[in-house]
Amino acid sequence: MNVGVVGGSGYGGAELVRLLAAHPALKLRTVAGKSAAGKRLDSVFPHLLGVDGADQRLTPATPEQLKGCDLVFLATPHEVSLDLAPALLAQGSAVVDLSGAFRLAPDVFAEWYGLPHIAPDLSPAVYGLPELFRDQIADARLVANPGCYPTAALLAMAPLAELVEPGSVVINGMSGASGAGKGLRDDLHLSHATANVAPYGAPRHRHTPEIEAIWGALVGAPDPPAVTFTPHLVPMARGELCTVVARLLDGAEAPDVSDAFVGAFAAETFVSFLGMDQWPATTHVIGGNGAHIGAAVDPRTRRVTVACASDNLVKGASGQAIQNANLMLGLPETAGLSPAGVYP
Amino acid sequence: MNVGVVGGSGYGGAELVRLLAAHPALKLRTVAGKSAAGKRLDSVFPHLLGVDGADQRLTPATPEQLKGCDLVFLATPHEVSLDLAPALLAQGSAVVDLSGAFRLAPDVFAEWYGLPHIAPDLSPAVYGLPELFRDQIADARLVANPGCYPTAALLAMAPLAELVEPGSVVINGMSGASGAGKGLRDDLHLSHATANVAPYGAPRHRHTPEIEAIWGALVGAPDPPAVTFTPHLVPMARGELCTVVARLLDGAEAPDVSDAFVGAFAAETFVSFLGMDQWPATTHVIGGNGAHIGAAVDPRTRRVTVACASDNLVKGASGQAIQNANLMLGLPETAGLSPAGVYP
Amino acid sequence: MNVGVVGGSGYGGAELVRLLAAHPALKLRTVAGKSAAGKRLDSVFPHLLGVDGADQRLTPATPEQLKGCDLVFLATPHEVSLDLAPALLAQGSAVVDLSGAFRLAPDVFAEWYGLPHIAPDLSPAVYGLPELFRDQIADARLVANPGCYPTAALLAMAPLAELVEPGSVVINGMSGASGAGKGLRDDLHLSHATANVAPYGAPRHRHTPEIEAIWGALVGAPDPPAVTFTPHLVPMARGELCTVVARLLDGAEAPDVSDAFVGAFAAETFVSFLGMDQWPATTHVIGGNGAHIGAAVDPRTRRVTVACASDNLVKGASGQAIQNANLMLGLPETAGLSPAGVYP
Amino acid sequence: MNVGVVGGSGYGGAELVRLLAAHPALKLRTVAGKSAAGKRLDSVFPHLLGVDGADQRLTPATPEQLKGCDLVFLATPHEVSLDLAPALLAQGSAVVDLSGAFRLAPDVFAEWYGLPHIAPDLSPAVYGLPELFRDQIADARLVANPGCYPTAALLAMAPLAELVEPGSVVINGMSGASGAGKGLRDDLHLSHATANVAPYGAPRHRHTPEIEAIWGALVGAPDPPAVTFTPHLVPMARGELCTVVARLLDGAEAPDVSDAFVGAFAAETFVSFLGMDQWPATTHVIGGNGAHIGAAVDPRTRRVTVACASDNLVKGASGQAIQNANLMLGLPETAGLSPAGVYP
Repeated sequence: MNVGVVGGSGYGGAELVRLLAAHPALKLRTVAGKSAAGKRLDSVFPHLLGVDGADQRLTPATPEQLKGCDLVFLATPHEVSLDLAPALLAQGSAVVDLSGAFRLAPDVFAEWYGLPHIAPDLSPAVYGLPELFRDQIADARLVANPGCYPTAALLAMAPLAELVEPGSVVINGMSGASGAGKGLRDDLHLSHATANVAPYGAPRHRHTPEIEAIWGALVGAPDPPAVTFTPHLVPMARGELCTVVARLLDGAEAPDVSDAFVGAFAAETFVSFLGMDQWPATTHVIGGNGAHIGAAVDPRTRRVTVACASDNLVKGASGQAIQNANLMLGLPETAGLSPAGVYP
Repeated sequence: MNVGVVGGSGYGGAELVRLLAAHPALKLRTVAGKSAAGKRLDSVFPHLLGVDGADQRLTPATPEQLKGCDLVFLATPHEVSLDLAPALLAQGSAVVDLSGAFRLAPDVFAEWYGLPHIAPDLSPAVYGLPELFRDQIADARLVANPGCYPTAALLAMAPLAELVEPGSVVINGMSGASGAGKGLRDDLHLSHATANVAPYGAPRHRHTPEIEAIWGALVGAPDPPAVTFTPHLVPMARGELCTVVARLLDGAEAPDVSDAFVGAFAAETFVSFLGMDQWPATTHVIGGNGAHIGAAVDPRTRRVTVACASDNLVKGASGQAIQNANLMLGLPETAGLSPAGVYP
Repeated sequence: MNVGVVGGSGYGGAELVRLLAAHPALKLRTVAGKSAAGKRLDSVFPHLLGVDGADQRLTPATPEQLKGCDLVFLATPHEVSLDLAPALLAQGSAVVDLSGAFRLAPDVFAEWYGLPHIAPDLSPAVYGLPELFRDQIADARLVANPGCYPTAALLAMAPLAELVEPGSVVINGMSGASGAGKGLRDDLHLSHATANVAPYGAPRHRHTPEIEAIWGALVGAPDPPAVTFTPHLVPMARGELCTVVARLLDGAEAPDVSDAFVGAFAAETFVSFLGMDQWPATTHVIGGNGAHIGAAVDPRTRRVTVACASDNLVKGASGQAIQNANLMLGLPETAGLSPAGVYP
Repeated sequence: MNVGVVGGSGYGGAELVRLLAAHPALKLRTVAGKSAAGKRLDSVFPHLLGVDGADQRLTPATPEQLKGCDLVFLATPHEVSLDLAPALLAQGSAVVDLSGAFRLAPDVFAEWYGLPHIAPDLSPAVYGLPELFRDQIADARLVANPGCYPTAALLAMAPLAELVEPGSVVINGMSGASGAGKGLRDDLHLSHATANVAPYGAPRHRHTPEIEAIWGALVGAPDPPAVTFTPHLVPMARGELCTVVARLLDGAEAPDVSDAFVGAFAAETFVSFLGMDQWPATTHVIGGNGAHIGAAVDPRTRRVTVACASDNLVKGASGQAIQNANLMLGLPETAGLSPAGVYP
């Protein structure tokens, strides 16, 4: 089957190209990219030198260029995705959108992104977290690929839906710099950032309402409960960790937490529960599509702490996008993907 | 005045030597260290080559070696401090102890450190966080220098004492590796750790009861309220950040938070409040005795988030120890210390 | 075809397992490892969680365990390889040895490794640098997989064989820490090493005679010319770069250098010549089996500078080992391998 | 005495401010900076928060602003230094220039910097490497502060002047990113650079002729011998290492090398010779004004290898500038400076 990638001049698009080169059933037909249109892909991204198809030139990001694709990955800013997705769907392609364009109800989108939603009937699209919404994804033509933080946070939170107070959730995110994209910024300059930890964007990071919306659905709350999410930049390129703290409901104890995580993930290829009082490390998951989870219960505070590590560009973006595409196209969910991290 | 350092073969002791070499009034008379006794200080720590006094040999860590010191810094494991402090006090030295030996009530110490306190009448000693307990420190002969995380956490929490629910505090700590000391461990191997973020020790890290004890005193609670503290290792040598989240009391709003931090720290040399919605970065404080604090209020969640960055070996250990010594010895509190970070 | 890996408790062995999991024709039958025998592979290396076959237990490293393997990879210390290789060959397995056991003439081995060679008739085995010795490798039953530095250095040097004075070569190597293995050492402690560059081992690093032997063969010198090789540790886990400087022969100019590199590597999948005055970056090659090369000629000094970047664990070890195995077993040379780096 | 700093919006200027704050005899009267003129110093560089004088505003970089300064440090691009230095000298200030404006003979400057020298009678000024040119510096009104690489390279080379073939020198430089300044560049983006080693600028880096000029003077060659210098970026903020390889003259042996280094540096506060077969590590010198040197002789190749580690912003720039200023103003050479590194 033929697929296209839009956003090939960014990290997410380049990661899609890298992963698709190893895919047994998906053929990368077109790579489009605005800022690098006309350039060879392997000159923009020399890490792709020698890779099959990386000598092709990036095309402009127009629907015409993508005709004939069975599925298109949009690794684009949300404004671009809002424009392109309806046109691509109309010309017959399925779409996995990696931006925030279709993750939220239109009114929530407008509030957090500061612009009206121009395709309100498409949003929220099916949320592309396969471990939670596998069946809906398989039936969808448009999937909203989750943000990197929400992927890690929601994998850590979902098994707790019946065990904790929904409104008690406090999330700390720690991410490598690639989550911020390729753009040049003072706070991403190596000299500033190579030995630096700093919060940013709190308490208005755009991943917050996305976590709240899905969390609300999981706990069955008509009004999604507000969560506190504080992201931090840590000095590495890839990998992220979300540490979630929540108050246990009366009667919920450590074995219930353990059972919930084992039950949720024992059969999953890409999500591993390490056990109670075991902590994940991002170094074990970078480069692969895996997520590692650990949890602990503190009887003193009656709080549970869960940490989830993943690669923000793979399970948190492009790998998960391929996992979604596999489901949408009727392929084995794991085709072309591996949970193996590139360690050390 | 003459001072001695015990623990000169560890990072904390070496940092004391580095800082004392620039001190105008304190003369480093003796450096003791168990594992490196007999060796030249600048052969154990080549970064001290050329520094005045760094050609001296480490002595055994016995009270006899430290006779005649007006003040002794104990940068030693708590078991060693428990042994040495009473003897040193008895022979007339003031003591700043950088370990956890004298920070807790004896019963709490026994519970968290797993051994009975052998000098219960000395513990808890005056808590050496000068911005909070300046006067008591000036009158003390034994000061318990705070742990690195509690320093950052309590500077972030203290101004909130009358503004938040005491039991709602959730703290995430992120620290460079030097906080774990020089000992070799798999998880501190460069190959494993250079691009890694991981929680550790939660929810039983020994800095937890120390934070709770002081927090309890600040909020005036007879039973110290339990806090949730999750430390993380981040890939850098120095620097740490604590992000504190707590629920605001009814009526408390952002301006109250701002006023509290300005009121607490405007006159301080070493603690800077950056303002509301400004976030600190560890890269600005490493190498110096400063701490930077930022805060934000989220009206959606009614929670306040405060982050405090400091250097775990300076303001979080040896620099603060000298600040305490200055107060105890009647010297200007800032003598020999600078808030300047070594940036970039 | 069935293959075995010995050394599965080390980085090289674990990397073989990761790469073999994606190989279309080689089935990993046995993973042996001394220090972790009896443990599950994915408990020793959690980055392999969820990978096919990673739930198997490491076996002892004995020939019996490896019977029936068409080929065995020895990712073992040279002493162990010296013991195992003859036995494995005798029971019918082909062998790719990743250690230094079979790379040198027995007398040179004895001089640099400090012990007599116990299988002198097997050494030097065919040198497993496919871009230089493809045909010999295809015919071999025992291949000596090159060291990581020699791989990068010799790819940078080979095209210069007729253009430079053989005895004028000065090589600077810079490597991430994984080249030093998993063992704990003071100079690999994150606190010491995270922002550190330092030479080590010079001028007696064991990769020196290996470079000299092959360089001697390439230039056709009966007595291999001595080279100066200075390795440095740089603060990263993976990736290495060798910068080679040599004096041009009279008449050799920049276009000759360019022609030589284009001629040598234009048809290669895994080695890319970036062009004159273009420099490679390790960040583009980590995680993949590629090597990137750039060169420049300085008419002022009549010297040529060539730099080659590769991943020490892939093209410099386990990836190249699989490339060799593919050749030895009659498979497509690139089977299961990609030049794509995991970027950023 | 009053001093001024021009270039206060760059790393070099900020480092001067940090160091001058601890200087017992120099008072920082004016900090000028083009891009940040009008802003508070501690808002441009928050690491200076709380430092004495850091609440002053940067002035425009004009001679008028600097009237009354006994000495002015120019941490400015060479074009700016060319303009300012003559005017400042004319109004009575001594000048330490940290740029390349006055390090070279005018014709060499024109060749390597691509513009004619507009103050040819001032250049080359006295070269501000105190361990080599202490007396001339003490008598100078204008001192050309060495580049960071030349500082490390020449400290490694100077003792070899009578022991090696002058034209055989090959230098590899490895530097943290701060040497490249604050400007934003793709190759300094954290995501690209955090685990990257790459050469750059070779073989035309502007520090090359500076090394050659001084090396020519040291060996007494009328025509300075050309050297090969290849700089590399390594993933850290501060610190640099130069590894120098040269061919020994007949008769020169390891003890001669050792004697030369001991003789050159035994009495120096800021330069430490670690001994033969000992290697320096940048981690020991960052933050301080020290340089560490190690050397080895390889009898096989008849070459000597010397490595020198220093902090590019301190001994390689601002610390050395203050060392020069101390000499020029008749103060103790070490005033306000320490060789101590901030370790770990």
